[in-house]
Amino acid sequence: MAKELTSRTDDYSQWYNDIVKKAQLADNSAVRGCMVIKPNGYAIWENMQKELDRMFKETGHVNAYFPLFVPKSLFEAEEKNAEGFAKECAVVTHYRLKNDPSEAGKLMVDPNAKLEEELIVRPTSEAIIWNTYRNWINSYRDLPLLVNQWANVVRWEMRTRLFLRTAEFLWQEGHTAHATKEEAIDETVQMVNVYAKFAEEYMAMPVIRGVKTANERFAGAEDTYTIEALMQDGKALQAGTSHFLGQNFAKAFNVQFLNQNNKQEFVWATSWGVSTRLMGGLIMTHSDDDGLVIPPKLAPTQVVIVPIPKPNDEIDEVANKIMSELRAKGISVKYDMDKKKRPGFKFAEYELVGIPVRIGIGKRDLEKGVIEVARRDTKEKMTIAVDGISEYVEQLLEDIQTNLFNRAKAYRDEHITKVDTMEEFKEVLETKGGFILAHWDGTTETEIKIRETTKATIRCIPLDNPLEDGKCILTGNPSKQRVLFAKAY
Amino acid sequence: MAKELTSRTDDYSQWYNDIVKKAQLADNSAVRGCMVIKPNGYAIWENMQKELDRMFKETGHVNAYFPLFVPKSLFEAEEKNAEGFAKECAVVTHYRLKNDPSEAGKLMVDPNAKLEEELIVRPTSEAIIWNTYRNWINSYRDLPLLVNQWANVVRWEMRTRLFLRTAEFLWQEGHTAHATKEEAIDETVQMVNVYAKFAEEYMAMPVIRGVKTANERFAGAEDTYTIEALMQDGKALQAGTSHFLGQNFAKAFNVQFLNQNNKQEFVWATSWGVSTRLMGGLIMTHSDDDGLVIPPKLAPTQVVIVPIPKPNDEIDEVANKIMSELRAKGISVKYDMDKKKRPGFKFAEYELVGIPVRIGIGKRDLEKGVIEVARRDTKEKMTIAVDGISEYVEQLLEDIQTNLFNRAKAYRDEHITKVDTMEEFKEVLETKGGFILAHWDGTTETEIKIRETTKATIRCIPLDNPLEDGKCILTGNPSKQRVLFAKAY
Repeated sequence: MAKELTSRTDDYSQWYNDIVKKAQLADNSAVRGCMVIKPNGYAIWENMQKELDRMFKETGHVNAYFPLFVPKSLFEAEEKNAEGFAKECAVVTHYRLKNDPSEAGKLMVDPNAKLEEELIVRPTSEAIIWNTYRNWINSYRDLPLLVNQWANVVRWEMRTRLFLRTAEFLWQEGHTAHATKEEAIDETVQMVNVYAKFAEEYMAMPVIRGVKTANERFAGAEDTYTIEALMQDGKALQAGTSHFLGQNFAKAFNVQFLNQNNKQEFVWATSWGVSTRLMGGLIMTHSDDDGLVIPPKLAPTQVVIVPIPKPNDEIDEVANKIMSELRAKGISVKYDMDKKKRPGFKFAEYELVGIPVRIGIGKRDLEKGVIEVARRDTKEKMTIAVDGISEYVEQLLEDIQTNLFNRAKAYRDEHITKVDTMEEFKEVLETKGGFILAHWDGTTETEIKIRETTKATIRCIPLDNPLEDGKCILTGNPSKQRVLFAKAY
Repeated sequence: MAKELTSRTDDYSQWYNDIVKKAQLADNSAVRGCMVIKPNGYAIWENMQKELDRMFKETGHVNAYFPLFVPKSLFEAEEKNAEGFAKECAVVTHYRLKNDPSEAGKLMVDPNAKLEEELIVRPTSEAIIWNTYRNWINSYRDLPLLVNQWANVVRWEMRTRLFLRTAEFLWQEGHTAHATKEEAIDETVQMVNVYAKFAEEYMAMPVIRGVKTANERFAGAEDTYTIEALMQDGKALQAGTSHFLGQNFAKAFNVQFLNQNNKQEFVWATSWGVSTRLMGGLIMTHSDDDGLVIPPKLAPTQVVIVPIPKPNDEIDEVANKIMSELRAKGISVKYDMDKKKRPGFKFAEYELVGIPVRIGIGKRDLEKGVIEVARRDTKEKMTIAVDGISEYVEQLLEDIQTNLFNRAKAYRDEHITKVDTMEEFKEVLETKGGFILAHWDGTTETEIKIRETTKATIRCIPLDNPLEDGKCILTGNPSKQRVLFAKAY
């Protein structure tokens, strides 16, 4: 059995890599920094996509698709955005290969097929989309424009980690256009709330919603809203962002509309995205030393039935009955009829891949009219009557979903610490970890100094943050509120 | 009203472009040959994806995701495949931009950020996937491996047309690995059958299944199966292909497995794909001079309700009742309450975008307990009792789906012509168009000569083709069966 995960206390980072590889979620590829998302991992991502897509459509958005490439002249039009991404851009310079005359069977880039203008592989699509919106928007009647795209993007990161930071990743990016500033801000807030709802209700991952500091904003944004989650090792994960872009892109691409008073005005913009990074968050919120733990609402297979010790006619019959009852309730279930593997081996395998509920059907138990039900989250085993089993499992899946959220939230809440001095700040950071609420004087200079000395960053200024007079932990200058610090992925 | 389509008889090609643009399906972009798929077009593609994805899963496939980029050394490993795509590859050579010292605010490719090995933007993923499969496959127990990927690919085509031939397009590509040749061939045939079923049952587009000649095979395949559809202008469209790849990729990437006799063997492969090109096929199979015609099973909105002349309380009430009845039946419906547009304008707009059924609710009709129902396919209008309207519409949608298929099939069947001489061949091609069944001597030389003199290609050798002695129309050499020729997109 290929289990043998590094334990979390021994080496959290190695444990993460072990889970991703041994639960067959993803793997490195032949291309530097690019991952292969394996079927086990992709099935979870598909479930995430399905729920998110539904939530986007329920809030009035439609999907579209824009080109993978951005001509350099468009890419550089919004200067802050361009500057923010310039250092990590994959660039297409040629459009043809030819036979390499020096080596039979080998190809080389054809120097005669150089593009007149280089193409940037999109690191994000504001530039190509706002250049398109110029043709779509003429008057206030064309607004709001509420568009989302599911796509791959490329950012040439130097240090990569499966799901968390990869050169290519999958994401969705919403790009909306509005007639007024207020409406655009409302959209920005609405979408960070959609992300928070998805994270908490589906991923069972509690998040803190907040606003980024100027220094941590998306390149080209006026304001960036974020959801921040806490991983089991006490590090934060930025799990989704929603940007109020002001009129920056409208001005860079000259996107104006005729307002109701017949005057030309620049359009107001938002953009918002979540990515396959969420997979990393899911893993590091719930999983344990035995493997992956997946919240039932996102689990590709919610229930597995294992015959003990082997399938036989009687067990098959009970299993088939349970399967059809569960399927009628919309619960996904599989029956493992493999005769070559022992039950213990199977149990460990299903724990490793995180199936929320396991049902063991044994011959002797059946004589008493009972079966064994095991939940992945707590590893409890219960002896349950076969009669009414599907209702029991249905409720159990809900309980697991709730328990995972509550457990993660209790951990998160225990790991929000208020500190008032730099000394305390460093001590909490080095010992307990987690989020730290501390006063900050509001300057980028202080923010950077704290980061340089502690590696902690300001994750956000939480929404509905209570105001409170205090002094900046670094400079002692006055502050009106605490902000949320953490070391982060 | 922005209708004014070119008529099909005046200029079929211009009519196609007009529909794509005026029904807002897609548009050209700032990137040469790359399209923007607009929300109206993307919604149809999403419906196609949904049904195809379900059919793939029902036949045992799972989804995964592989990198966008293929290192040049992997790309060239399977020589025929590499040769087939080398001339249309977008190549990434650099991974960073920097400020252009000669011009403030401009960026340039950083010459210090040249990749050691160039990356090809995938034109198809056999190379990167088979390089990955080497690590996934060890023994016969790992087979079959049945994986599909939804992705974007890039082929630097010189002459592009929206949906039909674009530099970047969206598609799915299945890549399967098998222990035996027979099993791989079975899979290849199964998937061309899945495509045919999808084309006929969902797109209402009749297709001929067949095998490509050696000359028209996918680069690197042993055999290519295809579905070929006929467009309204008498030209064929290759709508989907399924390839038996033999052991070519397994050998190029050294993918072997331990068979049941404990011996190493090379794995057998298939690949198969359909793309956003299907959107072009859908348009050119059903649409007319008034706009798009979408089969009900793929229509994002199946029914639209228009108040005549304007919404009022009474009409709203009836509309809401009809909507909830239709939605309970799983039918998508919208109610157009816009007071600023006249009904005639709305009718034309909904014809242009192809909503299958339009219900007009007028004040006077309501007094008689009736409403007007118009079907998009035949443009017939019926006066129908409000009572039982949802059952009527449900049946009507099925009838439209069936009628569209039958109409297209009648046209297609009328346009399959048997000819026995080169003279007849040319005459049918220039006057009637469509598919031509003719004898061919089986040589690539003849095939190319016919193409060069007539622009017609061999679309396929139909499956279950009746054997029949005859003489090649070009050379007079003996032939055992007729093959299917046409001019093609």
